[in-house]
Amino acid sequence: MALNYKLKIAYDGTRYYGWEHQPGRETVQGKLETVLARMCGLDLKDTDFMKPDCPIQLVGAGRTDAGVHARAMIANVVLDTHLSEDKIRDYMNRYLPDDIAVREVTAASDRFHARYKAVGKTYQYTLYDGPVRPVFNRKYYTYLDQPVDTDRMAAAAEYLVGEHDFKSFCGNSHMKKSTVRNVDRLEVRRAKGYIYITVHGTGFLQNMVRILVGTLLEVGYGRMNPEDMKGILEARDRKKAGPTAPAKGLCLISVDY
Amino acid sequence: MALNYKLKIAYDGTRYYGWEHQPGRETVQGKLETVLARMCGLDLKDTDFMKPDCPIQLVGAGRTDAGVHARAMIANVVLDTHLSEDKIRDYMNRYLPDDIAVREVTAASDRFHARYKAVGKTYQYTLYDGPVRPVFNRKYYTYLDQPVDTDRMAAAAEYLVGEHDFKSFCGNSHMKKSTVRNVDRLEVRRAKGYIYITVHGTGFLQNMVRILVGTLLEVGYGRMNPEDMKGILEARDRKKAGPTAPAKGLCLISVDY
Repeated sequence: MALNYKLKIAYDGTRYYGWEHQPGRETVQGKLETVLARMCGLDLKDTDFMKPDCPIQLVGAGRTDAGVHARAMIANVVLDTHLSEDKIRDYMNRYLPDDIAVREVTAASDRFHARYKAVGKTYQYTLYDGPVRPVFNRKYYTYLDQPVDTDRMAAAAEYLVGEHDFKSFCGNSHMKKSTVRNVDRLEVRRAKGYIYITVHGTGFLQNMVRILVGTLLEVGYGRMNPEDMKGILEARDRKKAGPTAPAKGLCLISVDY
Repeated sequence: MALNYKLKIAYDGTRYYGWEHQPGRETVQGKLETVLARMCGLDLKDTDFMKPDCPIQLVGAGRTDAGVHARAMIANVVLDTHLSEDKIRDYMNRYLPDDIAVREVTAASDRFHARYKAVGKTYQYTLYDGPVRPVFNRKYYTYLDQPVDTDRMAAAAEYLVGEHDFKSFCGNSHMKKSTVRNVDRLEVRRAKGYIYITVHGTGFLQNMVRILVGTLLEVGYGRMNPEDMKGILEARDRKKAGPTAPAKGLCLISVDY
């Protein structure tokens, strides 16, 4: 009997073209779907997964960009399998590459939809501005070769918290739908040379977190002032905000339902 | 004026043929020497570093095997440079690949020799035996697909602590010199699915830590008993000990002087 399953997935996004399945490219969704098809004894080609009637329909809470990581991406998929939840998890982990792991599989209600039911997401961006680059976690932070003023960054962050039109922070210039989003937390924290920027909101525009970080860094280096954030929001113009920070520092931490 | 400098170095050994310089191969020492030569304005070929009269003589506290990591390898080198200690560190880090970092450079006495003056070393071996492989640090631990009994491993470790002839734990069958070593600490600790084996001693034989770990795992899985350690030590026969654990789980933590 087919059941809807909720999956919690961790991945190192370094070598992937992001979450979303793209035939002929290495993607996280593509890796997961291929293993799920195999588990269900289905003989599917890479392009079959793009068809609306594909028997494996893995829905992610969101699409992470190429190079972005996740500690707990949530996805759901309807599966016809006799395997228990833990056995599904173990089967997937046996055949997945070692940079993707299924942390949990739980049976969910038929109505659970990882994208539509998501009510909030937490992302963390990690920077390091000490004198010596840490070696072991080097794929998961962005190195700053000059110390940055995090008090200024935190002051700028306060202007960005709340419901705003974030069009200036949207990487998709053709975005036709509303660019209003609610960011209820944007925190800049320092610990042992690392700088953690934690952001929580109901939803995010394309590249939004990375552009927020790039803009906060402009403030941290004195090229913008905290109060400039107001004008940048009002301008609704991508060119007014700072650059897009590199993907490697970004990690999806959790999804709320 | 030439001065003797002490270097503290961290590296991810994954892609290296170990510490020791080997012409034509990627080694940690080779990377460091090449950058030092450049810094001192010396035009040296890869093979020049093997010559006894090479002006750059980097001495490491020990040689780590291919794939083994270090949090704080210590080395010394006599350099004729006008750069300050921090500028040497910064220069090196600018030109080193991102999997090697010079954490500290300090001027040392002429008599300081990273190998001869070392009086102790601490290594840590990391295992994981939980149901889901952690993704982000996957290059730094060895995964066990079955839970292991760490109480048995700890009991076996007690037999190995002390001054013994560790010939059974020596990877070099042609070893002519004494195989007596003093291991004053061999600790098995569990934390959140990880198993940390920490070993401290005055010196170690080739592959000794990895063979100790491989043997403790035989006990942990019930294929050997803790008290078998006595007989293995007495046998002075590599074939009596367990297999050599993979390099990736091993890290040089510190060197005592």
